[in-house]
Amino acid sequence: MEKKYLFSPGPTPIPSEVLLAMARPIIHHRDPAYEELFAQVREDLKWLFQTKNDVLLFASSGTGPMDGAVSNLLSKGDKVLVISGGKFGERWAEICEAYSVKVKNIEVTWGKAVDPNVIANELEKDPSFKAVFVQASETSTGVAHPIKELCDIVKRYDNTIIVVDAISALGVMDLPMDKWGIDVMVSGSQKAFMLPPGLAMIGLSDKAWKFVEKSDLPKYYFDFKKELNNEKKNQNAFTPAISLVVGLKESLSMMKKEGLENLFARHAKLAKATREAAKALGLELLAPDSPSNALTAIKAPDGIDGAKLKKNLEAHYGIIAAGGQAHLKGKIIRIAHIGYFGPLDIIMAISALEMELKRMGYPVELGKGVKIAEEILLEGE
Amino acid sequence: MEKKYLFSPGPTPIPSEVLLAMARPIIHHRDPAYEELFAQVREDLKWLFQTKNDVLLFASSGTGPMDGAVSNLLSKGDKVLVISGGKFGERWAEICEAYSVKVKNIEVTWGKAVDPNVIANELEKDPSFKAVFVQASETSTGVAHPIKELCDIVKRYDNTIIVVDAISALGVMDLPMDKWGIDVMVSGSQKAFMLPPGLAMIGLSDKAWKFVEKSDLPKYYFDFKKELNNEKKNQNAFTPAISLVVGLKESLSMMKKEGLENLFARHAKLAKATREAAKALGLELLAPDSPSNALTAIKAPDGIDGAKLKKNLEAHYGIIAAGGQAHLKGKIIRIAHIGYFGPLDIIMAISALEMELKRMGYPVELGKGVKIAEEILLEGE
Repeated sequence: MEKKYLFSPGPTPIPSEVLLAMARPIIHHRDPAYEELFAQVREDLKWLFQTKNDVLLFASSGTGPMDGAVSNLLSKGDKVLVISGGKFGERWAEICEAYSVKVKNIEVTWGKAVDPNVIANELEKDPSFKAVFVQASETSTGVAHPIKELCDIVKRYDNTIIVVDAISALGVMDLPMDKWGIDVMVSGSQKAFMLPPGLAMIGLSDKAWKFVEKSDLPKYYFDFKKELNNEKKNQNAFTPAISLVVGLKESLSMMKKEGLENLFARHAKLAKATREAAKALGLELLAPDSPSNALTAIKAPDGIDGAKLKKNLEAHYGIIAAGGQAHLKGKIIRIAHIGYFGPLDIIMAISALEMELKRMGYPVELGKGVKIAEEILLEGE
Repeated sequence: MEKKYLFSPGPTPIPSEVLLAMARPIIHHRDPAYEELFAQVREDLKWLFQTKNDVLLFASSGTGPMDGAVSNLLSKGDKVLVISGGKFGERWAEICEAYSVKVKNIEVTWGKAVDPNVIANELEKDPSFKAVFVQASETSTGVAHPIKELCDIVKRYDNTIIVVDAISALGVMDLPMDKWGIDVMVSGSQKAFMLPPGLAMIGLSDKAWKFVEKSDLPKYYFDFKKELNNEKKNQNAFTPAISLVVGLKESLSMMKKEGLENLFARHAKLAKATREAAKALGLELLAPDSPSNALTAIKAPDGIDGAKLKKNLEAHYGIIAAGGQAHLKGKIIRIAHIGYFGPLDIIMAISALEMELKRMGYPVELGKGVKIAEEILLEGE
């Protein structure tokens, strides 16, 4: 028997209820049944994004509306700040460069969060930067950047917006769009939404919509204005990924039943248990100071090949974790706890880690990580 | 009981085998299991596109790689010919204009196919047109444009390519990419592929790939070179729509079992039966001279409101057909026979049409359409 347990930061496990909803006979996207369903989805997305504005839905992976955020909000030759401390920060820069937008990279050591003062200083020196691009949760390093602090800085400038990739952060940590002044927030279906990949969302503030009016970059498939005009009629500009939207209605309904506060608290607890268990095993975290609650990046200890550890976890225990990317290849292992995860899922991952490290010759006291995790999971119960 | 029968030209009915395959626990796209599956899908797509070249796969609806076809193949200020005889022809023009590509529209009456001589003359007068954009099957009118003849003309020009929207044509009619010299061919999952929407494919000829090298338009999410480089390693540039790719493997396997020749013959027969039955009922076809085998557009007879006919077909018989778009609103009804359709599905549609027309007061001899359809369905059996 090969039983697999998915601990990757996307795709994440999908509840059977959602899988089966998507397996129902397909409905037509011009039918009232779709419009009714989509109206509900639109309301629920506003709730999750914590915004009064419409959230746009695209048939694409998360990179789609990231591309669209550049082409819909900026103009050729605009200057922007990109916080670059991981693979997805680099993606913002790549997209901007593809559209001839001038990028000033704010380099951050992989595993560290950006210092908001650096951004404050940059904007003070030169307030003509049109946008600040950042990840709420940098999936390649497990870092959470200080979004609230960055918003407080950016909102001082009328001609600058903050664009947040919250693909692996939305539904995990509190990101109240309107309250904090997040101008643009992107997410994707295969994370906390507990869905397969193929659906992406983007929310825009009133300030951001004014930028859309001025943008001169070319766009068609990811044309935000066109999509908004259609969504106001509970339709989409182009054929939507119907089955995924059907699944989205189910998963949003599960999230609503849990409630925002519980959703964030659950992720916080699972993340803390994972981190503390790893530390109890003598392992070092890649992002000890500003960890994301979506995933935990653990450094492979001396003498242990991270790539082999990842491989063995799957071969011996069916645990599908993620390895390191770019220069972190073989150096870290990433254990995700986004979406459909309960306390015992974390226990499984930690137990497998303990047993596998022991097999690989790393001195580990069996049960020590699990014990700490259990203590944390019991906190406040 | 409300039993529905989907006869819309996308989404189309999805076999239970495919729905259930997509409901299996999700796999990770960086795992060997995905790579193995995707390698098979890549081979099967080449078979269906009848090309030796790679077919690129995107998480998007069909409009996605249509957008990409413009941004990856052309440059700012390029001139192109767009064959515009329906809503999707117009879409080619809209995309080109979004990217500052200069469009010469070849207007064709909705319901007619383009006269290849018109294109031959245009290119003779001015061989600097970089591309000819066309639909193999114009879904808004049910017209099939003469792709082979157009290819024969375009292939005389080294600096001109033909770009074919085969979204509702691929797997329905014979479109041998390499043999005919189709330079670019786009398709989408929710048509003959018998899948939900959310996955789109595009094939490029060697000549087209040379255009990609020269293009200076901005692109990121739909970057063909980047996607090709990843697909050569059985991966994708960005997170793929995993569950739909799993479904695609199933549906391609069903299509292969049937074989190309049978696939095209089945669609041809179902289409002919639909057309002849409609004619036997005294109805007029919108595209009598060059009909697409993907769908049949039937004019609403005098005194019958097409929109009401469509609505009643669903209300009384559960038949979900499509109405007319733009100036054809209320004027036609479109009955699709793309993908997962057998002879008796056509009988159902014709029977419902007979009964509903009778209800609505149109003089119809009950059973007359069905009789003709049966005769055609029996041809060669």
